[in-house]
Amino acid sequence: MFAEIITIGDELLIGQVVDTNSAWMGQELNKIGIEVLRIVSIRDREEEIIEAVDNAMKRVNIVLVTGGLGPTKDDITKQTLCKYFHTELIFSEEVFENVKRVLAGKIPMNALNKSQAMVPKDCTVINNPVGSASVSWFEKDNKVLVSMPGVPQEMTTVMTESVLPKLREKFQTDVIMHRTFLVQHYPESILAEKLEPWETALPESIKLAYLPKLGIIRLRLTGRGQNKTEVESALNDEQAKLEAILGDDIFSEEDIPLEVIVGELLKKKNLTVSTAESCTGGSIAARLTSIAGSSEYFNGGIVAYSNEVKMNLLHVSPETLEVYGAVSEQTVIEMVKGAMKALKTDCAVATSGIAGPGGGTPEKPVGTVWIAAGYKNEIRTYRQETNRGRAMNIERAGNNALLILRDLLK
Amino acid sequence: MFAEIITIGDELLIGQVVDTNSAWMGQELNKIGIEVLRIVSIRDREEEIIEAVDNAMKRVNIVLVTGGLGPTKDDITKQTLCKYFHTELIFSEEVFENVKRVLAGKIPMNALNKSQAMVPKDCTVINNPVGSASVSWFEKDNKVLVSMPGVPQEMTTVMTESVLPKLREKFQTDVIMHRTFLVQHYPESILAEKLEPWETALPESIKLAYLPKLGIIRLRLTGRGQNKTEVESALNDEQAKLEAILGDDIFSEEDIPLEVIVGELLKKKNLTVSTAESCTGGSIAARLTSIAGSSEYFNGGIVAYSNEVKMNLLHVSPETLEVYGAVSEQTVIEMVKGAMKALKTDCAVATSGIAGPGGGTPEKPVGTVWIAAGYKNEIRTYRQETNRGRAMNIERAGNNALLILRDLLK
Repeated sequence: MFAEIITIGDELLIGQVVDTNSAWMGQELNKIGIEVLRIVSIRDREEEIIEAVDNAMKRVNIVLVTGGLGPTKDDITKQTLCKYFHTELIFSEEVFENVKRVLAGKIPMNALNKSQAMVPKDCTVINNPVGSASVSWFEKDNKVLVSMPGVPQEMTTVMTESVLPKLREKFQTDVIMHRTFLVQHYPESILAEKLEPWETALPESIKLAYLPKLGIIRLRLTGRGQNKTEVESALNDEQAKLEAILGDDIFSEEDIPLEVIVGELLKKKNLTVSTAESCTGGSIAARLTSIAGSSEYFNGGIVAYSNEVKMNLLHVSPETLEVYGAVSEQTVIEMVKGAMKALKTDCAVATSGIAGPGGGTPEKPVGTVWIAAGYKNEIRTYRQETNRGRAMNIERAGNNALLILRDLLK
Repeated sequence: MFAEIITIGDELLIGQVVDTNSAWMGQELNKIGIEVLRIVSIRDREEEIIEAVDNAMKRVNIVLVTGGLGPTKDDITKQTLCKYFHTELIFSEEVFENVKRVLAGKIPMNALNKSQAMVPKDCTVINNPVGSASVSWFEKDNKVLVSMPGVPQEMTTVMTESVLPKLREKFQTDVIMHRTFLVQHYPESILAEKLEPWETALPESIKLAYLPKLGIIRLRLTGRGQNKTEVESALNDEQAKLEAILGDDIFSEEDIPLEVIVGELLKKKNLTVSTAESCTGGSIAARLTSIAGSSEYFNGGIVAYSNEVKMNLLHVSPETLEVYGAVSEQTVIEMVKGAMKALKTDCAVATSGIAGPGGGTPEKPVGTVWIAAGYKNEIRTYRQETNRGRAMNIERAGNNALLILRDLLK
């Protein structure tokens, strides 16, 4: 089953906004066996919207549209789709109640907000629990077009809660099952080489995908067939083979963020954690606390960007900084010890590095990051190398810090 | 002058990679008066590439293609474009020298790499100084198609150094100018209402767009015309009217992140800053340090998730926590003072709130966040309300903290 995604908004074409929605939608659609053939971004212009929609409706059975549903004049998707589907806008009391609920206590209702309650007459209106723009599900010649808001949180909520289940119900005949494995310690090409004999021998009904991301490779096995028990059993067989090849390098059999994996481990062991961050600048603490309930195991952290803070709050010795420098194994060891002591936790992670783009030296080029994880009296360290740009150097250092902590605790 | 961008690669359609190239290209093309009409992402399939290219060549004069130029089997853009333009691949000694130079010391040359030196016969070949895939510039009926590598660093380099200058030279273009204004203190619909009379009276040549994001609204004015002075003068007129309506609520006349705005202000005033974060969990520090050079003004931060850390490291008094609770104006005031003292900075921001989804009470429902910014002896506070989900509550609190700090410093 094929789909096309159309994202609408001048801001996409002039490059003010990066379209992250389509990638997320592509992933989720794939999981239910719907393949995205094309992603098209167009401007808020009636004739361009109609042309793109018409072409897509000719090519595929499922067209997912995002954007152009705001209350302001530049947003014309709703009216334009009414024109395309030969219908009109009518006032929906139910949607109006939702708009009132969503806006309650935030902003006073005005005519523009009220216009959000106008919905296409000949379509199924899907409620948007997190925003004031509703979702329109059109059907024509057994094909479906769904118009959703472009705000990522609203789109992902309505997709997850309503659109994906409805699409699955309408279009999916095959059973499709996924298993995802998170793998560490491998660059992609080396892992691909190691897995090649097994991959080549995979049955027709099972597909393997590599999804590498900064020190972590996600491997996704997708099984497809008519019979659930058969698909499940084929996946079990291949999973067993994969586990025999990779062993402990598979650090999770669920596609969940590292901060969740580490959080679960800390909860299970009843341990507390803290962070001492230089180059990662608070991003590891932010990741740990992005998880609801993290206050159970996360006490706090120190972002020690200056050497003075490293000395004053983490008690890194001036001699260590003088002799080995801030970016050194010795410094991160003292940082991790300092964090456990100052924040009174059972374990901690620490980072210090040159995130770039400036600040590199021949011995410590941009991209060099020292990382440490400590648990009681044991400390492990890791030197991260190669420069992938500031943002990715920081994110990868966070991944490595959490991976090392997990290895230490497990 | 209109362009279309075609990005090629299965990884885009299954959501493995977010297409950040197109946004960058859209921005750069706009700057030289070329408007992107459409961005299309398609799979590595010959018939789909030919269809997309052919449609684009019919619609616009400039087609920019990225991706599918790697040495592996799945990359077929080069061969497919040869087919479309009725030409063939020939070996280029010059490109081969570049491939050798780029790969030297990294990976050994093999047959696949050598295939990178095969280039379309009837096209202008543009050298790629940072990668092994060359750039092909095709012309047909006075229209141009440029095929570039999809690796962002390679694409941006060849665009900047060769493609944009060549496009500018070849096409006589309209002048297109953008002005973006960042506005605070307004929900979108209230702002739209306030601006309506002015918006309705805008001349044909000027368009307004609203781009709201968690406490901030970006307003973009786009002017278009044949004559630079005229476009500029029309924009100046409208900008003056907008500024008269919104005054200080416009906090930036450039579309840059808040952490950059605050960072520039701190540098200009030669001040240092620190953070004391509870519910934002280090994310404000992470934002501040995401900017290269932030070590000039950012000393460090304390993530005080537990009350114990608030007391021990930020010296919040136990009585304050007991009487007013951790989520209170009194607590964030003490936190901000504690941060300035412990981290020895001129100013600081602090946050404490209920990010959710749990932890709310009738007096302090989920979404309540107390925020403070302090500069020497002055402290400003703000109570953020309404729940938009954990991640957005945190991001919005970060926005508000940086906005309050900026107001305090400016």
